[in-house]
Formats: sequence, structure tokens, C-alpha cells
Amino acid sequence: MGKRVIITGVPGVGKTTVVEGAMKALATEGIIYQPINFGSFMFEVAAKEGIVQDRDQMRKLDRTVQKKLQKMAAQAIAAIEGNIIIDTHCSVKTPQGFLPGLPEWVLSALLPDMLILVETDEDQILQRRLRDPTRIRDMEGSRGIADHQQFNRSAASAIGVMTGCTVKIVKNQDFLLEQAIQEMAAALR
Amino acid sequence: MGKRVIITGVPGVGKTTVVEGAMKALATEGIIYQPINFGSFMFEVAAKEGIVQDRDQMRKLDRTVQKKLQKMAAQAIAAIEGNIIIDTHCSVKTPQGFLPGLPEWVLSALLPDMLILVETDEDQILQRRLRDPTRIRDMEGSRGIADHQQFNRSAASAIGVMTGCTVKIVKNQDFLLEQAIQEMAAALR
Amino acid sequence: MGKRVIITGVPGVGKTTVVEGAMKALATEGIIYQPINFGSFMFEVAAKEGIVQDRDQMRKLDRTVQKKLQKMAAQAIAAIEGNIIIDTHCSVKTPQGFLPGLPEWVLSALLPDMLILVETDEDQILQRRLRDPTRIRDMEGSRGIADHQQFNRSAASAIGVMTGCTVKIVKNQDFLLEQAIQEMAAALR
Repeated sequence: MGKRVIITGVPGVGKTTVVEGAMKALATEGIIYQPINFGSFMFEVAAKEGIVQDRDQMRKLDRTVQKKLQKMAAQAIAAIEGNIIIDTHCSVKTPQGFLPGLPEWVLSALLPDMLILVETDEDQILQRRLRDPTRIRDMEGSRGIADHQQFNRSAASAIGVMTGCTVKIVKNQDFLLEQAIQEMAAALR
Repeated sequence: MGKRVIITGVPGVGKTTVVEGAMKALATEGIIYQPINFGSFMFEVAAKEGIVQDRDQMRKLDRTVQKKLQKMAAQAIAAIEGNIIIDTHCSVKTPQGFLPGLPEWVLSALLPDMLILVETDEDQILQRRLRDPTRIRDMEGSRGIADHQQFNRSAASAIGVMTGCTVKIVKNQDFLLEQAIQEMAAALR
Repeated sequence: MGKRVIITGVPGVGKTTVVEGAMKALATEGIIYQPINFGSFMFEVAAKEGIVQDRDQMRKLDRTVQKKLQKMAAQAIAAIEGNIIIDTHCSVKTPQGFLPGLPEWVLSALLPDMLILVETDEDQILQRRLRDPTRIRDMEGSRGIADHQQFNRSAASAIGVMTGCTVKIVKNQDFLLEQAIQEMAAALR
């Protein structure tokens, strides 16, 4: 059976860039990971089941339905063969607080081998978000970003205890993208 | 079914003041939450079962009995209809370390929708405690208060992963009580 | 039944020195704890089962076999009578990230009463490691040590929520060993 790796990081940390770089580096060595976006995968499950027609409806689902869809998506992902990288949120900031993106029922279905947290200094994240016009609406200060990253770290350690998976922190600092890619590739190798 | 919200915060953070303000604000909009103190509720359960006569005896209970009472109280609270706010400790500082106030067997019975942590700067908490003559006996330094708040935050994120509830941090800073009340009301609305 | 206490701390924090001092102090009062090293205990279980011949082979075990051995060791330890102190790692730093030393299947077998984290300033730990020639190979900076201690603290709070055990932080600061010993003895008394 292949490796099941979960990749998380707050919006703007540059998670996708690091993952793509690491996958490219590993591919040259013949190590293949299939990338899976948990949210998109869950939408496809919901659409196939006739529960939603478009992605906007996903956010308005009843809590019980959402939980059931999360479980179904996790089970389907767990059945995939070969190495997989599951891109998802450790938690999402909502007016009701941090909503865990990897609750117990998702974890017990996925049984991950590794959880990678991509992090960097909150001020760097703030500046990256300021340069991205699509993120302007939900702008928060660097204090809020630091709280979010701290929450994710704590959640990650709880996930480690609950599932036994390793928890790898990869720093994606300004001017040091190549280092982040190499570190992630080394963990995935 | 109503919302089940747990409110926690270290002694002296002003949790009760914020909760009462938020409940008052929401009541004017017709949104009603029933406040429940977990400790008092548990005592009533224990008294009804003939296990204790007064509250002092609650602290000296055998660990197994305490666990059983916690479970019974949590199940009875979960059966209450309408929105409820459960006031309890995320952890209690004891000579044996931080004692979790929301262990797994309480959480799996309560199945909360939201956990609210009321926090503020440790120095402000220290000063609030210094002004309160009833707290003098167990005085600790600001370093200890910071450790306690950090422990509660980590515990809160573990609770989020285990139950799927959202975790909301509400800051109750000096001179900004009204802001804290509005923030809590917004999360409860 | 006796007390089951787990003691953890990052390499170089001086865990063993504090534990031995506390056990000696308690022995003069007639309070006896049996010390158990989880790793050594697990090796003995593996050797008895004919799974390994020497300790080096322990690190190369298949994940499923390791999990099974951890469970067997935890169950055997839980059956020991009297007070026990279990010395183990909260997490081990590996190229794949922090590997939890106390995953759920170990905890649910051990059902600890208390988890003690021995900590100190990361710079002091760095200097203690620099003075120890056996640790030179895996040297890391103080930032990495701080991250490791933070990860262990978060993991400890998750363990508290999952098992209901108390979590005690004992600081083992330079020049203050006696204070650390007294604090640990007080928690174990």
C-alpha cells in the first residue's frame, strides 16, 4: 500500500507551490504521488450522490449531511492505490471560530502516515495576502494569522496522538522556496 | 435541536461578565440561551443520587465515581432542549498538574457545536486576581497564567479535532468589554 | 491499584536525573515507584516473541508490527501492580516529522493517571547537548528544540483530553535541580 500524506497550511502560505515543486523533484527519481484536493473530491462525491449541483451549495449543507459526505470522501480516498497527497485545511476560520478540517471521522477513515504543515512567519503571510487581490475580502491582521497557525499546530499534534502519524513542519520562507521544496521532498521520499 | 456551546477561561479572565452581556444582547433579538454551570449541575446529580450531601465532598470523590458523575451530568445536559451555554473549566490547576475539565467521556456525551475560550493578556488576569480578595490563596505569577492559557488553547484544538466543534477565541481585554460581548454575541447568534 | 505516571522530555533536558532524585526523596518516606523504560520493555516483549534479536532491529520494524508490539508492551505494563513511572518519549524527531511516542493505542492500554513533561529553556538544552559527546550527531539549533518542546506540550494536552490524566510541567532549569526534584516528588507523593 502507498503512503497517505496530508498537506495543510493557512491561506497564502504558498502550500501549492511547495507541493508542486516537491512532486516534480520526486518524479525525476521515479517517485510518484497522486495529488488530491479534499474539498474538490468531496464535491464530486456530493454531486454524484445528487446532493448538490454546484460548489456554492457545499457551504450551506446541513451539518449532518456534511459529516456524512466527509466520511464518504475520506473512505473513497483511502481506497486509492499508490502514494497520495491530500491537500486540505487543518482548520477554516469562520465567525463561529476555527472549524476543524480534519475531524476524527475523517482521520479514522484516512489513517494518514504523515501530516505536513506548511508554515512561515505571520508577517510574510500577511504580505503575500496583500499582494493577492482575490484574498482582499477576508483580510485579517498578523496577530490573527499567528493564532491560526498556532491552532493548526496544536490540532496537528492532537492528530498525531490520535492516529500515530508523523507531523512534519516545513517552513516556506521568503527567498527560500527551494529549501522548502527540498525539505518536503525529503520527507516524502 | 438547539446549539450546545461550551464556555471556558482561566479564573479571573471575566468569563461570566462577557457571557451575561452576550446573553442579554441576544435576548433583545429573541435569541435565548439557557446558561448551565457544569460543576453545579454535576453536584445536583450527585446529591440526587445520594452520593454527596454538600459541595465540599465533590472534591474528595474517588476518581471512578467522579468519572461516572461527569458522564451522567453530560448526558443529562445533552438531553436539554433549546440553545444551551455550558460554563466549565477547560482544565483546573492542581498539584498533580492540569486536570482536564472536558475529558473524552464528557465530550462524547455533550457533542458540542462550539467551544468558546475567553482569554486576555496574562498580566491583565494577574491584576484582576490581585483586586479580588477571594482569590488571594491560590495566587500564581503571570508566567503560570500564560502556561495555563496555552494549555487550554491546545486542549481546545484537540477537542475540535475529536468532536468537530468550532473553537472560538474571544479576547476580554481591559477597557474593551463591550467588544468582547459583541464578539461573543456574534458567534452565538 | 497503584498510580501510573508517564515521564517525558526532549533529549538533554535531564529527565532521568530529576526522576531519580524524586524517587530517592520519596523512598525515604516509604513511597515506592517502580521505574519502567517503555523502549526497553518493548524490546523485551519483541525478543520474547522472537521478532527481534537485538535492539537495532527495533528501529527497522514494519509499522504494523511496531504498533502491535507497542500495544502488547502497554498492556503488560498496565498489568504491573503498585506505583509505576513509565519513561518514554512524547515524540521522536525523524526526517518524516515528529513521531508520536504515545499514540492512542498505547494510551488506551496504559490509562495513565498523570503525564509529567520535564522542560527547560531551549538554550539550556542546546548547551547541555553540546557538552554531551554522544549527542553530537543529531545536533539541532535552539529553534528546533523550542518547536519540539512546543509539539510535546500540545500533544500532552491532547493526551489529557483523551485519557483524563493530569498534565504536570516540571521545569529543570540550570542551578535549580533540587527545585525540580522537589516539584516532581510533590506531584508523585
